[in-house]
Amino acid sequence: MEKVEDQNPQQEDQVVNPWEVSAKDGGKIDYDKLIDKFGCQRLDQSFVDRVQRLTSRPPHVFLRRGVFFAHRDFNDILDAYERGQKFYLYTGRGPSSEALHLGHLIPFMFTKYLQDAFKVPLVIQLTDDEKCMWKNLSVEESQRLARENAKDIIACGFDISKTFIFSDFDYVGGAFYKNMVKVAKCVTYNKVVGIFGFTGEDHIGKVSFPPVQAVPSFPSSFPHLFSGKDDLRCLIPCAIDQDPYFRMTRDVAPRIGYHKPALIESLFFPALQGETGKMSASDPNSAIYVTDSAKDIKYKVNKHAFTGGQETIEKHRQYGANLEVDIPIKYLNFFLEDDAELEHIKKEYGAGRMLTGEVKKRLIEVLTEIVERHRRARAAVTDEMVDAFMAVRPLPNMFD
Amino acid sequence: MEKVEDQNPQQEDQVVNPWEVSAKDGGKIDYDKLIDKFGCQRLDQSFVDRVQRLTSRPPHVFLRRGVFFAHRDFNDILDAYERGQKFYLYTGRGPSSEALHLGHLIPFMFTKYLQDAFKVPLVIQLTDDEKCMWKNLSVEESQRLARENAKDIIACGFDISKTFIFSDFDYVGGAFYKNMVKVAKCVTYNKVVGIFGFTGEDHIGKVSFPPVQAVPSFPSSFPHLFSGKDDLRCLIPCAIDQDPYFRMTRDVAPRIGYHKPALIESLFFPALQGETGKMSASDPNSAIYVTDSAKDIKYKVNKHAFTGGQETIEKHRQYGANLEVDIPIKYLNFFLEDDAELEHIKKEYGAGRMLTGEVKKRLIEVLTEIVERHRRARAAVTDEMVDAFMAVRPLPNMFD
Repeated sequence: MEKVEDQNPQQEDQVVNPWEVSAKDGGKIDYDKLIDKFGCQRLDQSFVDRVQRLTSRPPHVFLRRGVFFAHRDFNDILDAYERGQKFYLYTGRGPSSEALHLGHLIPFMFTKYLQDAFKVPLVIQLTDDEKCMWKNLSVEESQRLARENAKDIIACGFDISKTFIFSDFDYVGGAFYKNMVKVAKCVTYNKVVGIFGFTGEDHIGKVSFPPVQAVPSFPSSFPHLFSGKDDLRCLIPCAIDQDPYFRMTRDVAPRIGYHKPALIESLFFPALQGETGKMSASDPNSAIYVTDSAKDIKYKVNKHAFTGGQETIEKHRQYGANLEVDIPIKYLNFFLEDDAELEHIKKEYGAGRMLTGEVKKRLIEVLTEIVERHRRARAAVTDEMVDAFMAVRPLPNMFD
Repeated sequence: MEKVEDQNPQQEDQVVNPWEVSAKDGGKIDYDKLIDKFGCQRLDQSFVDRVQRLTSRPPHVFLRRGVFFAHRDFNDILDAYERGQKFYLYTGRGPSSEALHLGHLIPFMFTKYLQDAFKVPLVIQLTDDEKCMWKNLSVEESQRLARENAKDIIACGFDISKTFIFSDFDYVGGAFYKNMVKVAKCVTYNKVVGIFGFTGEDHIGKVSFPPVQAVPSFPSSFPHLFSGKDDLRCLIPCAIDQDPYFRMTRDVAPRIGYHKPALIESLFFPALQGETGKMSASDPNSAIYVTDSAKDIKYKVNKHAFTGGQETIEKHRQYGANLEVDIPIKYLNFFLEDDAELEHIKKEYGAGRMLTGEVKKRLIEVLTEIVERHRRARAAVTDEMVDAFMAVRPLPNMFD
């Protein structure tokens, strides 16, 4: 049973949709409640074990630590895969800013792992049309940001023989547009108001957009890739705020003869100031950007990371840190790959034997290494590579 | 001053929008009221004279008899033309049925005259996406109808060196889609509800469509034709029920840096049963189709044409025919090119010296000739010609 509850911000404790993530009274997002409300499933340990078994490789840190914590029909994807049927991956980004922060990279890092582990093709949608409409950017500026963001995405290491990146302004048309029309026919205005909370004073571009994000879920939107493979299933790794788009898509899919896309959904990456939702693009000190220098990272972590350490060393030694609210621990949970070391830090820090400064120091090392590695990878991405990833072309070896 | 009054069918005497044309209590459409309500201008004799002078050819029968009776900024088009600046024509059709009736041909016949007289390029939009969404046709069936209708349109004699015909399913994308997004950003949902009367239970495809019909008004939607000619003006010949789309377009145009399109708008071609609106697609006896045989035409005119003749020959001789309601006279007004003959018929018939049967006989001759000529022309239209008209290609001699 698909649960497609409508959202009304006025009556909600917490609001999670593609444009707003806010917890009740500035508290933490209640993910259990969100799963219940959205009607998706929790991704439990049995999935982690099964993925490990099917792919013969250790599960990604985001998987084994519950960063990707919810799903829809991921079991169907795995069942089919076990029977020898491949699938394709679909993820995306709204190119609203030049520099990505670490939260933006999470779905891409995880998608790269899935691509490598399952050996499947991937389509990446850059919704420059959406950002042009929501952020009041010009068409040209949205397209420029899409290309800049594509470089960061490519820097995550995707396999060019299995990956098609497209911008909506470039790619909407043909089979893709036909699917948009098919979807739009099946969704009433009242329905999108219920799902997305649009008002009568919103422009019609907003009302028109959901089908654009819906249709990459259907293989026939990519005839150059999946011609004759209408039965191919789609798996969408994304943050859970994108769920409303795909609830809508899953509702429509069987009515127009397509499989429902499956989803695997992540937590939000918390702001340095504490876990009250997503990071704020308007406050550069709320996030670590992939363009931050080692000095920036050190400053931001030391100055702005909210910690669960005690006020004085004495108290800290006595009571230990509150790991539940501690941002350095949360960040290490995302990015420190060594399970044993993470456990050790949590144990020592929680018991007060390790100080906040020591944990921050380790976090700074970890983040600096990731950001430096990303910076080097991005510097190596040429315009020709962007063109190559974005070229409308067949991918003959995409299932190898 | 652009007048953009909102329509509310509940409060209106007569309803005229792209999907409904109905007069008050089944009476006649009040075109003066419509002009006033829509805020367009009447096309008076001075325009007819000016067109004749500028083009050095007799004005089309639809122009000199007031079939095209209203306009928006047609004077600006003529002013610019007089200064040596050309323009382009844009018209279209929603391909909802296989066979066109004579009412469907009117804008195309007139557009062909304008193309020849002003020597200007023309874009013809086939809104297969619209019909797929409104009429619940499949994508494939809408596209098939679009191609079939294109043959009828080509049969009207358009100059292939100056004409680009496109289907939305084929052509939406690229520069065209960018303009759609620009338009959509400028129009609120409340606005389209006011203009088109959509409800919350209408699907979002309907809400998304107005920008699709709007953007052929902008030369930048056709880079293969008008690259570097962003300043080119657009003139749209259409029936007045399409005015709501272009009121919206004209409202948006200056906000996104484009000229407002000019319009030249026609009356509705009346049903055989009388002038109470447009013809009904569901009643084949309400219209003459381009596929009707000579026998069909004779039968329909003799059996179904509402006349203003009197009940008996004696009364007819005494009182004469009521030309105001007489459909044969109205049809002759559209299609009998000889002004002197038409005047003669009206005079004799109105005075009772000519009988209804005689007028019908002449009408049958005129219609049969038009339909036969169209049938021959359409039979000569090959699939290759359709492909050629619909090919995305430059038209190097389009202003010659």
